[in-house]
Amino acid sequence: MTSDRQRKARARRGGTSVSYETAHTLSRRQRDISVSEFFLKNRHLLGFDNPRKALLTAVKEAVDNSLDACEEAGVLPEISVDIEQVGTSRFRVSVTDNGPGIIREQIPRIFAKLLYGSKFHRLRMSRGQQGMGISAAGMYGQLTTSQPTVILSRTGAREPAHHVEVMIDTRKNQPVVVRDRRIDWRPEFFTTGETGRTQRISHALHGTMVSIVLEGNYIRGKLSVDEYLRQCAVVNPHLELHYRIRLPGDGAAPWIRFRRATERLPPRPAEIRPHPHGVELGMLIQILKDASQRTLKAALRENFCRVSSRVAEEICRRAGLDPGTRPARIAQGDAERLYKAISHTRIVRPPIDCLSPIGEEQLLLGLKKEIQADFYTAVTRPPAVYRGNPFQIEVALAYARPGENPDLGAEDPVRVLRFANRVPLLYMSGACAMTRAVASANWRNYGLSQPRNSLPLGPMVVLVHIASVWVPFVSESKEAVAHYPEIVREMTFALQECGRRLAVYLNRRRRQAEAQRKLQHIEKYIPHLALGLKEILALSERQERAVVNRLRESLERSRLQLSNRGKG
Amino acid sequence: MTSDRQRKARARRGGTSVSYETAHTLSRRQRDISVSEFFLKNRHLLGFDNPRKALLTAVKEAVDNSLDACEEAGVLPEISVDIEQVGTSRFRVSVTDNGPGIIREQIPRIFAKLLYGSKFHRLRMSRGQQGMGISAAGMYGQLTTSQPTVILSRTGAREPAHHVEVMIDTRKNQPVVVRDRRIDWRPEFFTTGETGRTQRISHALHGTMVSIVLEGNYIRGKLSVDEYLRQCAVVNPHLELHYRIRLPGDGAAPWIRFRRATERLPPRPAEIRPHPHGVELGMLIQILKDASQRTLKAALRENFCRVSSRVAEEICRRAGLDPGTRPARIAQGDAERLYKAISHTRIVRPPIDCLSPIGEEQLLLGLKKEIQADFYTAVTRPPAVYRGNPFQIEVALAYARPGENPDLGAEDPVRVLRFANRVPLLYMSGACAMTRAVASANWRNYGLSQPRNSLPLGPMVVLVHIASVWVPFVSESKEAVAHYPEIVREMTFALQECGRRLAVYLNRRRRQAEAQRKLQHIEKYIPHLALGLKEILALSERQERAVVNRLRESLERSRLQLSNRGKG
Repeated sequence: MTSDRQRKARARRGGTSVSYETAHTLSRRQRDISVSEFFLKNRHLLGFDNPRKALLTAVKEAVDNSLDACEEAGVLPEISVDIEQVGTSRFRVSVTDNGPGIIREQIPRIFAKLLYGSKFHRLRMSRGQQGMGISAAGMYGQLTTSQPTVILSRTGAREPAHHVEVMIDTRKNQPVVVRDRRIDWRPEFFTTGETGRTQRISHALHGTMVSIVLEGNYIRGKLSVDEYLRQCAVVNPHLELHYRIRLPGDGAAPWIRFRRATERLPPRPAEIRPHPHGVELGMLIQILKDASQRTLKAALRENFCRVSSRVAEEICRRAGLDPGTRPARIAQGDAERLYKAISHTRIVRPPIDCLSPIGEEQLLLGLKKEIQADFYTAVTRPPAVYRGNPFQIEVALAYARPGENPDLGAEDPVRVLRFANRVPLLYMSGACAMTRAVASANWRNYGLSQPRNSLPLGPMVVLVHIASVWVPFVSESKEAVAHYPEIVREMTFALQECGRRLAVYLNRRRRQAEAQRKLQHIEKYIPHLALGLKEILALSERQERAVVNRLRESLERSRLQLSNRGKG
Repeated sequence: MTSDRQRKARARRGGTSVSYETAHTLSRRQRDISVSEFFLKNRHLLGFDNPRKALLTAVKEAVDNSLDACEEAGVLPEISVDIEQVGTSRFRVSVTDNGPGIIREQIPRIFAKLLYGSKFHRLRMSRGQQGMGISAAGMYGQLTTSQPTVILSRTGAREPAHHVEVMIDTRKNQPVVVRDRRIDWRPEFFTTGETGRTQRISHALHGTMVSIVLEGNYIRGKLSVDEYLRQCAVVNPHLELHYRIRLPGDGAAPWIRFRRATERLPPRPAEIRPHPHGVELGMLIQILKDASQRTLKAALRENFCRVSSRVAEEICRRAGLDPGTRPARIAQGDAERLYKAISHTRIVRPPIDCLSPIGEEQLLLGLKKEIQADFYTAVTRPPAVYRGNPFQIEVALAYARPGENPDLGAEDPVRVLRFANRVPLLYMSGACAMTRAVASANWRNYGLSQPRNSLPLGPMVVLVHIASVWVPFVSESKEAVAHYPEIVREMTFALQECGRRLAVYLNRRRRQAEAQRKLQHIEKYIPHLALGLKEILALSERQERAVVNRLRESLERSRLQLSNRGKG
């Protein structure tokens, strides 16, 4: 027996009275959970685990969106990232681009609604995949600072610019517009000269600026925004990037400029239809249900890639189905037979023009621009397929001479830079197939020392890039690539090819150093040689000097030859 | 200029023609993505990475739901898990419980709608947290086999049972009922005797059966359904569990019975309100907005735990706010001041009656029931708090004599069994705070050998359990606990306490073994001793035998004393 007072006391302690449920009381507690509420409570899943990572994730989502938008619109991207600390652990992140802009009606949903976007329902290579990132960043900002996301956008010279401020109603996963006006605005980009003077260096007639205030923490180093942007510049050599971070007491922070190394936009990847061998039974049924075609044969041909009329007929024959049947009828009954028939039919691999790798030339441009080293090489593998999805692996190396690059210690493990669809991956390297592929290659074969099952040691950067219509990440914060055997195999091949080239370089350098050492040795003896000759041949001082000079000249020639051979 | 034929050829290859987007064409591609579509594409996030794990995850979600339902309704749980292989890589998983049942109207949404449930919006310790699991299992089954989820349920003796079959419309994240009828059914439980005869041993008048056909793979071992259920029985000693797996060619598979070790249901954990120190600014604003109270003071007192009128007044005073203001007004303007004031106010830690640990006694019961060993010990720590959430750590050890338990090798790393709110965690042990805590403790102090930074070696099982109103998992497949320092610290304390007790046992055993060795040594010499005595004292053969026997008896007595001391 619980008295009222006891119950009240318990209620004050925070507990409520304990009584058992029945099916009926349980049913009254059942409720919908909005996807925003879910990810707000589980925000670590989207990369907002802690203030440091949150700052990086917000920058990353905004920059990825800007790059995707520019490339889709065929615009050479120019982007500025402006970070300002506005409180003890509070930062304003503003990212401006010269992209196509966003029409007014779409702004609220793009920036304040989870699971809304253009990239989820298609098979095309792009940085974004989910339609979550930028809204999640805004939601995190709102949770921690209660500030709205501010968006400025303009779609062309003759269009007005819009200033829209949005918050997200997490109960409903719907945007709430808190401010909305037309303004006079265009994206502008700044740089700080060597004299410390900041000036506008360019502007555009269309583009978008997004600004989010959030709880963050700025620490330099491997997991910092700085590192992220530097790596971004490496794999996007067509990007012109401006970056500034203003911390209290830092004085006038300068704009850092990452210049583009090429004016060539990457070729625009094509969208593809799903490959029949990458589709599960349930998906097949959905496709048949949705099909607008009137016959099974046409539905197979039009909704999948690599299915010609002949292939479609073969599939129907194997399944014992009439090619003229209505697709929706198959969905209800014979889908499983159709599914089995598909898996037993030989179908050409998916097309590969949907991939846009960086390319060996551009990779070298990017690496040379940002990483000081002596030897560079790059390999772009031919496309391959995992679970019906085309993908392509690229690997590049930069190897520095001793002391050439203070970031690269001769005794340290090599630095691995990981990229997926041109986006740098900073966190979770231990869980990533790329790191494992680098550690699994046998670098001793190529002249590096390497502890068992670990990264090799040396003043080297290894860059690994996967391009795919659907990158298989191990979590939706998109930080590590899953271990598909097909993907690991391609990485291994590319690493081996780069390794062989590295071995050639290291051997040559070793031979060269050896020869150099010999020459230096000889040089030491030239004066003694000349002295001996002088005594034997009774030369004058002047003749002795001439002998020394001639010997030096001939030595210099062979040295030159050596070093030219070295460069060849 | 692309001719029609070229375009057609390209379309056949699977590509579509490439043209750049504008803000307007881009906007037409923007679409809502349903949460089902999202998790269907990203199903590895929910534990459906591969067929083996999918089978385990489906069983796990169903059993967790059954246990939660039974405990909420105050019913001693009896559950049967029946797995049947029905195709090459196809399994039917059927889980039956004697829980309260589910009323007909709720069945479709509970089993075929993601993010729907009773556990997300409350702070109460339970196995389920998200309202995702069982619907996700059904969705995976539907994707891979196109079979509906079948549910039988009955809420009481006088109620009809319902047979409902549901599928999920992934475009809308809505259930579709494909069959619905009243039937005559009640949950029944079976066992197979030693003679191989299967018979019904019990039934209930309410309960639920859920059956899902899915693509799966059954492999025995550490990550198997068998192991999951065995561990379930360890930490739920009040559970009566029946398990059968029917594989083709296996003949009549027997029901395996895990008997309950106690008739005592765990005390029902209370629901608590959030603690002010665990709430972010955005959440505080939401609470104030939703508050039905008319004053700020009342809103603080009624919506949070540990806030008395006095504490509420102190918070208002610090924030410079009138305690009589309407809460919704604060939400719009001064929430940040209020938030800061809360963080500077001392508030008692959250209540702990919301936790229901297993308890040392029950832990020992569970361990002894399922793991053959010589020494058992268990520690339940007092409750602690991380980020405003109460939690409690329990650790138990079982140490076997050499050769006593074939599963536990003397030279192998110890086995770590991990549990969160009584649910076994099988995957991702490397990423889990529990594994790290065990490897970080200094087991050499307690008499075990231990490689650097690794698990100790020995014939031992270490069980770690966290009970919390909100377990911080590293991913929503709920397989590893995040590294909160407060949580790791509590684990370390509990492990050290168990370690000290283990050291006492191991020392005693060592001394005992030493003494035993001495006794055996003496025993060897008894016949020689008797022979000597016989010669000296000129005893008869009979007298010699009597001497030997007396010496043996006295030796036996000291051996008994030793071993009794050992058990004390």
